[in-house]
Amino acid sequence: MTPRLHQALAAASAEIEAALDSHLKLPDGPEARLVEAMRYATLGGGKRLRPFLVLQSAQLFNVAASSAMRAACAIEMVHCYSLVHDDLPAMDNDDTRRGKATTHRQFDEATAILAGDALLTRAFKLLAHPATHGDAQVRAELVLALSEAAGASGMAGGQMLDLIAETTPLDLGAITRLQRLKTGAIIAFSAEAGALLGKAPSQARLALRAYAHDLGLAFQIADDLLDVEGNEQETGKKTQKDAARNKATFVSLLGVERARAQARLLAEQAAKHLDLFAGKAELLQDVARWVVDRRN
Amino acid sequence: MTPRLHQALAAASAEIEAALDSHLKLPDGPEARLVEAMRYATLGGGKRLRPFLVLQSAQLFNVAASSAMRAACAIEMVHCYSLVHDDLPAMDNDDTRRGKATTHRQFDEATAILAGDALLTRAFKLLAHPATHGDAQVRAELVLALSEAAGASGMAGGQMLDLIAETTPLDLGAITRLQRLKTGAIIAFSAEAGALLGKAPSQARLALRAYAHDLGLAFQIADDLLDVEGNEQETGKKTQKDAARNKATFVSLLGVERARAQARLLAEQAAKHLDLFAGKAELLQDVARWVVDRRN
Repeated sequence: MTPRLHQALAAASAEIEAALDSHLKLPDGPEARLVEAMRYATLGGGKRLRPFLVLQSAQLFNVAASSAMRAACAIEMVHCYSLVHDDLPAMDNDDTRRGKATTHRQFDEATAILAGDALLTRAFKLLAHPATHGDAQVRAELVLALSEAAGASGMAGGQMLDLIAETTPLDLGAITRLQRLKTGAIIAFSAEAGALLGKAPSQARLALRAYAHDLGLAFQIADDLLDVEGNEQETGKKTQKDAARNKATFVSLLGVERARAQARLLAEQAAKHLDLFAGKAELLQDVARWVVDRRN
Repeated sequence: MTPRLHQALAAASAEIEAALDSHLKLPDGPEARLVEAMRYATLGGGKRLRPFLVLQSAQLFNVAASSAMRAACAIEMVHCYSLVHDDLPAMDNDDTRRGKATTHRQFDEATAILAGDALLTRAFKLLAHPATHGDAQVRAELVLALSEAAGASGMAGGQMLDLIAETTPLDLGAITRLQRLKTGAIIAFSAEAGALLGKAPSQARLALRAYAHDLGLAFQIADDLLDVEGNEQETGKKTQKDAARNKATFVSLLGVERARAQARLLAEQAAKHLDLFAGKAELLQDVARWVVDRRN
């Protein structure tokens, strides 16, 4: 990771943490337990890659920091909800996440299901609220784009494919499509959100989409590599899971070396889409190169 | 049920069914299984009370039928998502719903969790789409109001209280609050949605809220009575569940006779709030009287 990215990511993470905290105040009454679970699932961890993409893309179009941060928090909540539900016994049945117990292990399954539901719902509330943008058209566009990225033709559809992949062998084309839906759609929306907030011209918006598209795939290949080469201490979650389940991944299909080369190629390609911004998007370009070499 | 309500509800149900069907087209690819589960959870059953409230309240303000129907479908999707998740083994662990197998019994738990997630997400997509209303301000307001009604300070919070109620004895005040969150918030939003779509004056909007508030409680007391007095054949779901779990309900706290009297009183009170509409809201008034005497 470049020093400037390290510094920017650390500063942004602290701000994102504080903003998420402020959006998840504990209510009075026994239902506070639900918000406790939402907080547990959201606060104190994670790379904050998606919200960082929102903040950085928003900067390209001089979007007010408070607007960008609300969109960033909404996307992180959707990401965290998806982790909570993915970790459930009926899904991936994971006990650890980000180095601590998964939400259903810390609370219970029913609370985890509800906390995920409520985080997803809260994300739409954040986006639709007038504080996010003075123009209701922009708020409605954000809601629409997030719902498309997160729903049956986006993340949830990708998750369905992932479940199917556990019993049905998939080829490289199918794996690529799975990942484009499962992780790519939300990452693409993250990079695009700044353009939506800034009412950017469509050329800039498309460049960010293309960037995020390649970034998302590179990110996923790196994730598959980490599952093979990483260890639980570094990654904060169980590794060697895919092989144990005999699950087709980029690495099982391409082999470690070709997979790594492919990830690097995608990262370079992602960075190149942003040449359009003539040096204003260097941190986003650094992100692309970092995700393929990260250790967690 | 009055003959005019019977006729109107039957006609609306058929239209709602067709509209939901059109919003849940099967995609290509193996992830179609997810949409199959969403369709299973949504189509072919239910009283369609909530979407009917939307359609009826929209008529009071001359809202375009296509706008009202989109909002109606969104609310029904949220309702159906909540049933799918409530029925899960970790929650109520129900095998039957609307006289057929629950979604996780028909498919599997993981698919049911995802189908619920995707239905919730789809609801926001429906509302945010330009086809719902020409004014983006209205669309953003609908999204905001639905997210508040469905989230941690609405339905999901009520569901949390419901889980807590299984182990902690609640008094009448707490039960009332539980139900106001768990079912009341979405019912209130349903009645209010027409006013939002029609940019109704706040007096009319508040009257509909007050109506729906009383209606929601009356509805829930009737539900508790059905759990005690109904049978699975008529209700399409298991009965005597609350007593078996020793769970405090309006009926266990008030007794059958006082609970029924209370439900009727609330229904009359609900209807009275609509006198403001001088005879234009008679079907909504009929609804209030019907929900307390229904058999399923």
